[in-house]
Amino acid sequence: MKESKIRTIDYSNTRITGGFWKQKQQLVRRVTAKAVYDRFSDTGRIRAFRFDWKEGMPDKPHFFWDSDVAKWMEGAAYMLAQKPDARLEKKVDDLVDLIEKNQCEDGYFNIFFTVVDPESRFKNRDWHELYCAGHLTEAAVAYYQATGKRKFLDCMCRYVDYIEKRFVTDADTPFATPGHEEIELALVRLYECTKEVRYLNLAKHFVDMRGHDELCLPDWMAPSYAQSHLPVREQKTAEGHAVRAMYLYCGMADVAWHTDDAQLRAACEAIFDNVAEKRMYITGGIGSSGSGEAFTVDYDLPNLISYTESCAALALALFANRMLRFGADSKYSDVVERVIYNGFLSSLSLDGKSFFYQNPLEILPGMHTRDVSVKHKSVHLPPMQRSEVFACSCCPPNIVRFIPSIANMLYSDDGEVIYVHQFMQSLTTIERDGKMLVLEQNTRYPENGKVKIKLTGGDARVAVRIPGWFEGYTGKTEKGYAYFDLSDGDELSFDFTMKPIFVEARPEVVFDCGRYAVMRGPVLYCMEGADNGAVLRDIALDSHARFKYEKHPVLGVPQLSIRAWRTVREPNAPLYRRKTQNKEQVRAVLIPYYAFANRGESEMQVWHFVK
Amino acid sequence: MKESKIRTIDYSNTRITGGFWKQKQQLVRRVTAKAVYDRFSDTGRIRAFRFDWKEGMPDKPHFFWDSDVAKWMEGAAYMLAQKPDARLEKKVDDLVDLIEKNQCEDGYFNIFFTVVDPESRFKNRDWHELYCAGHLTEAAVAYYQATGKRKFLDCMCRYVDYIEKRFVTDADTPFATPGHEEIELALVRLYECTKEVRYLNLAKHFVDMRGHDELCLPDWMAPSYAQSHLPVREQKTAEGHAVRAMYLYCGMADVAWHTDDAQLRAACEAIFDNVAEKRMYITGGIGSSGSGEAFTVDYDLPNLISYTESCAALALALFANRMLRFGADSKYSDVVERVIYNGFLSSLSLDGKSFFYQNPLEILPGMHTRDVSVKHKSVHLPPMQRSEVFACSCCPPNIVRFIPSIANMLYSDDGEVIYVHQFMQSLTTIERDGKMLVLEQNTRYPENGKVKIKLTGGDARVAVRIPGWFEGYTGKTEKGYAYFDLSDGDELSFDFTMKPIFVEARPEVVFDCGRYAVMRGPVLYCMEGADNGAVLRDIALDSHARFKYEKHPVLGVPQLSIRAWRTVREPNAPLYRRKTQNKEQVRAVLIPYYAFANRGESEMQVWHFVK
Repeated sequence: MKESKIRTIDYSNTRITGGFWKQKQQLVRRVTAKAVYDRFSDTGRIRAFRFDWKEGMPDKPHFFWDSDVAKWMEGAAYMLAQKPDARLEKKVDDLVDLIEKNQCEDGYFNIFFTVVDPESRFKNRDWHELYCAGHLTEAAVAYYQATGKRKFLDCMCRYVDYIEKRFVTDADTPFATPGHEEIELALVRLYECTKEVRYLNLAKHFVDMRGHDELCLPDWMAPSYAQSHLPVREQKTAEGHAVRAMYLYCGMADVAWHTDDAQLRAACEAIFDNVAEKRMYITGGIGSSGSGEAFTVDYDLPNLISYTESCAALALALFANRMLRFGADSKYSDVVERVIYNGFLSSLSLDGKSFFYQNPLEILPGMHTRDVSVKHKSVHLPPMQRSEVFACSCCPPNIVRFIPSIANMLYSDDGEVIYVHQFMQSLTTIERDGKMLVLEQNTRYPENGKVKIKLTGGDARVAVRIPGWFEGYTGKTEKGYAYFDLSDGDELSFDFTMKPIFVEARPEVVFDCGRYAVMRGPVLYCMEGADNGAVLRDIALDSHARFKYEKHPVLGVPQLSIRAWRTVREPNAPLYRRKTQNKEQVRAVLIPYYAFANRGESEMQVWHFVK
Repeated sequence: MKESKIRTIDYSNTRITGGFWKQKQQLVRRVTAKAVYDRFSDTGRIRAFRFDWKEGMPDKPHFFWDSDVAKWMEGAAYMLAQKPDARLEKKVDDLVDLIEKNQCEDGYFNIFFTVVDPESRFKNRDWHELYCAGHLTEAAVAYYQATGKRKFLDCMCRYVDYIEKRFVTDADTPFATPGHEEIELALVRLYECTKEVRYLNLAKHFVDMRGHDELCLPDWMAPSYAQSHLPVREQKTAEGHAVRAMYLYCGMADVAWHTDDAQLRAACEAIFDNVAEKRMYITGGIGSSGSGEAFTVDYDLPNLISYTESCAALALALFANRMLRFGADSKYSDVVERVIYNGFLSSLSLDGKSFFYQNPLEILPGMHTRDVSVKHKSVHLPPMQRSEVFACSCCPPNIVRFIPSIANMLYSDDGEVIYVHQFMQSLTTIERDGKMLVLEQNTRYPENGKVKIKLTGGDARVAVRIPGWFEGYTGKTEKGYAYFDLSDGDELSFDFTMKPIFVEARPEVVFDCGRYAVMRGPVLYCMEGADNGAVLRDIALDSHARFKYEKHPVLGVPQLSIRAWRTVREPNAPLYRRKTQNKEQVRAVLIPYYAFANRGESEMQVWHFVK
């Protein structure tokens, strides 16, 4: 019998062998992972696992610290799976030893609710305990799969058993589902690893119970903030806190896939469409309001005050990638691509050491210093610079786990067709009828769009995503994929020519009206004050001129330049006067959006005026 | 000896005899004044003057309520000066009786600090006591001048004497100058009325003491919030709370004029230039930040989140008009005109019953409803509709006193030249060498720019402002004024042809970059959703087409229409796609900015895209 379900081919069977993402993986391995660990040491997050904090001591553990470190551990596991590193493994083992040592008798594990406030265990829905449990579980699974060591996994199975007892068997907690989701997808992952169906059932339980008259949220939250406004199968739009939402939708997709739940799948599809068609920035960033870090309403995508949390972007890629298991459709893989090259990647500095929590689409430095006569801000704006550390440090370790596992986004397989979703220099192996197929991808993507895909080890049908941004493909496609029957040794060759283009948003996106973005292939470009001086809105790009593509002399990243007109600043012009045509020709320089804010505070703009 | 100083010819010598402002004066007399009085009755502000409030009773007096009612009384005085009205006079007399009855033995008068919190008299710099005293004083002067009744004036003289004792003679208050200015200009007015030089000296005292190491402000305020960052003669920019600032600058100008203080005058000139050249909206609105209702930094004039309080706009007109006494210069009278036809007048609904506290330059209704998952707002936005009443009700009675006294803005005289600053159908009398000159203005301004000015009763030199927006004047001008030697019976005739024009802002005003406003004469026009549908930013006005000027069929105000292109909304267009040229020709309708928001909530836009 043929396997008909599409399965993701994960990082353990795929190696990024070169190119853009290999460089990013090396950066994370060499710089970012260490930088995040060191900041976690400096801030007491690592030491907290000793469970010896007492009132009056510095570095009081916070109730979500476990998750910060867990994500770092998960990232370490992916790096260890790719390449041994005794010092890195020792760091994880030390943490695992502390986790085992300090886990409660009954299986419960949480630093804050053991050493700071033990009375509050499982009392507050919004206090992130199950979220922490989820991240620890993911880390445990990843570490077991990377090293074969069971200790951490066993600890987390005990903890999950305890959670099942409290939330299902005894049902004695004041709330039924987590205020901050994540555990759902982690439980499915634990099930996939252990084959223990109770874990899948527990995931399904948390998904099913959601949105049924449950309160236990802070007063200022509407139920939709925590996706609790409706039973999940009735939800059709992305609502509330964007990271929570995306983790839930991942868990829903996982449960739907494993249990063949058509209703749940349909909810996921509707929600995805709502995000991709109405609530997503051109960067792939989501969550447009800093008030609640939240989704708002359709087409509400202001640039200057965008929240667009790094974790939310990343989680959208995770969700979109999961949706590909229901059938290859480039609407999902296009979104993955949009996110990873833009709204996610912008979160990491080019030197790998500092991080954006929010990823703005426009920076007007003057707006940050306008409140000169009061000691509070009139408008919440994203910071203009990445930071090495922040109190709520969910994003940095999320980068540490996402980039090393980015190979998860590349391929899937349904026993008949091998699907190629993303283009990265890579090698993957697929077992098929006892044979080991090897699919090799050769490409310098996104430097250019030339992609070669070679199959060896047997015959197979291969489906390749034709990128949504590429308009020159003349072959037949189905839902954005081109299908090929390949024999052993066949090589497919594509040239998705990357011509810079001007992009418009739907007119309902008011803040983008009359303005245009520039993309080259999957990469969004932006203007920075550092290259173009002030004021960027003074510059109208010539939409009929040709872009020049070259290397940025300072940043080393690609740059585009184009003829443009800048309003002439007359020193003595009145504040308001009859329209003039005083423009001077200039050459505007654009850099990849992911590379902005690497040269100090600077104006930045994604949506440009054109002429 | 000739009088060489320029003196304002005030409302008592000038009658608006017809036209635009006569209609507005009638509206205020018939509708607005009553509406405001009724709201003040409803909310307990009138009853509060009985001084019988006790803890537990409703309508607890607020510490600035005295000023609300005082401004209404001042407005009533101006109306009584123009036309007797026994019922209106009775209302004022009743209040005056209560004021006399409840004034403290020592002369102190404040409802809140007598019936609610007597322990706090003159303890808190920011609690508006001197501000209330100022408005009561202005009202008392106006009522005396209108009716010849001294009772109110005598009360306020007693109060001011007490203030002088506490702040100068005894100097026993913890603060030296008001947190909210206003009393300075009121004291000068009291001096002008009574000729008692102590009052001028007290005004000068408050002006001089300001900005000398005085604290006593709430923690969240920077000293500049209350214009206390520098001694006033060293201030060169408009800072802090815009209404406080403007009232101070009025007081500074008054003191400078009376005392021939060149340094103080220079500070006023510098501050005025800073406002007019760098910190004023095209409406004449000022104070661009809702955080502190404050000035911010040069060129920071965001439209969507503008604060632009009605009182601040009105006070800018008062300040600019005062500056004309140092020498006729149309930079001042142009600003008066900009304010009165736009950012001030927008504060009153066409039916005279409701009021804007803030006067936005752009309304995007969707922004008001974006925070769906949290119970707090992400961005402070001005309300979309005028309100009949609000808790902080400074603006409605300010309208009630401003419009009936708008004739103050028209003329001034230095004994040699009669200056014509504004164009309104009016009649003014000027005593000159024992003769009574009559200057009669015949105009339908701002319907059109035809103005006839006739002098009778003798000969005089007459200076007429050539409006800054009019580019067709070919005669000789000095600082924007044309000078004419007229003999008895001579008539000047002007035609300041009003052609609608597109206006641009300086490029530093980032939110106006690439966008253009439409003005016809002094009147700014805007687009509303009610006429043009959503989304206004979809519409590009054809800057080469001709405007059509006619009457708005619903509002009865003038309207402009022009050829425009609207982005075509394709129902199934993706959220982002390659730039298209899908535009349809439409006819855009613009109405006077002062007339927006008279047909329910609607999108509104001042700065437009053009083609």
